[in-house]
Amino acid sequence: MWTVTEADLPYIAIGAGILGTGGGGNPYVGQLRARQAIRRWGPVTVLDPEELPDDASVICVGGIGAPTVGVEKVRDLQSYHALRAIEDFVGEKATALISNEIGGSNSVEPLIAAAKAGLPVVDADGMGRAFPEFQMKTFFVYGVPCCPMAVADEKGNSIIVRETISPVWAERLARAATIQMGCVACYAVAPMTRDQVINTAVPNTLTLARDLGHAVQRARDSGDDPLAAILATCPGRILFNGKVVDVDRRTTSGFARGALTIEGIDEFNGQALLIDFQNENLVARLDGDIICTVPDLICAVTTDTGEPVTTELMRYGLRVAILGFPAPALWSTPEGLAVAGPRAFGYDTDYLPLTV
Amino acid sequence: MWTVTEADLPYIAIGAGILGTGGGGNPYVGQLRARQAIRRWGPVTVLDPEELPDDASVICVGGIGAPTVGVEKVRDLQSYHALRAIEDFVGEKATALISNEIGGSNSVEPLIAAAKAGLPVVDADGMGRAFPEFQMKTFFVYGVPCCPMAVADEKGNSIIVRETISPVWAERLARAATIQMGCVACYAVAPMTRDQVINTAVPNTLTLARDLGHAVQRARDSGDDPLAAILATCPGRILFNGKVVDVDRRTTSGFARGALTIEGIDEFNGQALLIDFQNENLVARLDGDIICTVPDLICAVTTDTGEPVTTELMRYGLRVAILGFPAPALWSTPEGLAVAGPRAFGYDTDYLPLTV
Repeated sequence: MWTVTEADLPYIAIGAGILGTGGGGNPYVGQLRARQAIRRWGPVTVLDPEELPDDASVICVGGIGAPTVGVEKVRDLQSYHALRAIEDFVGEKATALISNEIGGSNSVEPLIAAAKAGLPVVDADGMGRAFPEFQMKTFFVYGVPCCPMAVADEKGNSIIVRETISPVWAERLARAATIQMGCVACYAVAPMTRDQVINTAVPNTLTLARDLGHAVQRARDSGDDPLAAILATCPGRILFNGKVVDVDRRTTSGFARGALTIEGIDEFNGQALLIDFQNENLVARLDGDIICTVPDLICAVTTDTGEPVTTELMRYGLRVAILGFPAPALWSTPEGLAVAGPRAFGYDTDYLPLTV
Repeated sequence: MWTVTEADLPYIAIGAGILGTGGGGNPYVGQLRARQAIRRWGPVTVLDPEELPDDASVICVGGIGAPTVGVEKVRDLQSYHALRAIEDFVGEKATALISNEIGGSNSVEPLIAAAKAGLPVVDADGMGRAFPEFQMKTFFVYGVPCCPMAVADEKGNSIIVRETISPVWAERLARAATIQMGCVACYAVAPMTRDQVINTAVPNTLTLARDLGHAVQRARDSGDDPLAAILATCPGRILFNGKVVDVDRRTTSGFARGALTIEGIDEFNGQALLIDFQNENLVARLDGDIICTVPDLICAVTTDTGEPVTTELMRYGLRVAILGFPAPALWSTPEGLAVAGPRAFGYDTDYLPLTV
């Protein structure tokens, strides 16, 4: 058990930015919103999944939409409204909240609703990274129902996706509502039990995000290499190092989609890396050959400071290192890959686990 | 009180086709579906609004989508599923059903759900005609909340539009779900009281539809003019008479939209009528001058048989008479016109009531 205070937020923002693989909502905007919530309603208790009481009722909350829109149309208390909507629908109150994805601002989305509702959050999430689509959660891969779920906007509109024939249909209907709501909304899913959280969540990811941020900040303060500090905290490797020479980005069907091209420098001189993204980085190609795919993490950070760069802020001329991290074990099973492997995103290629 | 049997359905189909002003869902498809339901579950009792018990709980059900799609992707029991979904949500069972709109197949949509559920239907509806958008109901114009409402598809997906800041937002969110569901779905709205039905519904429209159908059939059988028979049953006038020479129709944003051009014959020789439609006929222009607009009814029937022609089946070469009927009184108030007058459809023109 620990407590998230204002002081932790900049570290969580860095760590969640790295784990966000380019998406998950802008971490800086998320940090500002979480700071406002904690100032107003107080710090939030973080429980290890094992610390949940037996009769826990854990509601997953998160943002949905295109990160390109989320930086202009900043969220307010939509996750709290979605929480209340799903509580009303199921006739049961949450006793704790859990993040849908630790990446980006979704790391702190439950903190905001929890601060307002006076609830703890669980030190775990449904991805251990970020993914663009609602159904891409370890919870649902391992048997937690994805419905009913509530979607709420900032204006006062809310819907319940009551029943669907598959998790993909829940994504489809929730996304259609989100687009109408202006491409920015929040959702909350019907409660999970303690056992469901323990068996299906990726554990201790809020702690990991915070620790990653600490490691980066310590390296910056002491003049050490922030990339080495990141890799010492979360095992992975440097996939590429270079300068962004092209960003092709469009906001379409409720997502930020596109590709970026990086020209190598130093040991990668003369090579080029192409990364496709759909909110998050999906596939990395080195001179045309795939070298890393979902569900492994493909993360862009500035070379000098280790600052994560999200896809909506990626721009020409940035010097970035591309880091790769192996996916959490819950994703590398056949069930996990069916939901979030390269074929789930339309790529005609198998998952080749990243070696570290 | 009367009972709808199989024998009534062809008459209702004709009358509802006329009152549908081109839309409301294909009446022939609706007739076949209602026949199947009545054969399977028995005839349906029709109650006058005044015959409702004081504690009545009246649920409005209807189809939503594009009629162009509805003739290919025929509805099944979606209205029944939507009914059960909204009953579950509000924790209250319906004691009677009411049509959202008397036009087209929506005249019989409640009969289908009512036959299956063993409920009566009310002899009234929320339009006295057909309109393309969900919020365009006299119920909502005169204070009945439009939410919560449920939308269900044929696959097993359902959503609840739980709360919206306006009836237009309910339409927006329900339409977005409908498009995902394949442009064909059904909905059910939270229950109305007896007083709400009496004060806000257009009364006795199922009886009117049946009587119109009887009048047309009698004229056909006896060799009389079916147009005269229609106008004797429902006061209105012939706006135009001619041959369809152009139909520009596209299925877009969940609607069948377009325009048709008719060249005059007989006393209209040398003149042309242009009709814009969005599922339903909205505005009629004679040689460029507007001669009739929503909420007044603009109805196309074949000249020789008085058979209504819906916009999705309108085609080159058809000989049609265009009939105009004054809107029900509930629509010609400022409140009614704000929701379903020409300006509500984007026309920069005031409503000029049709004189009969």
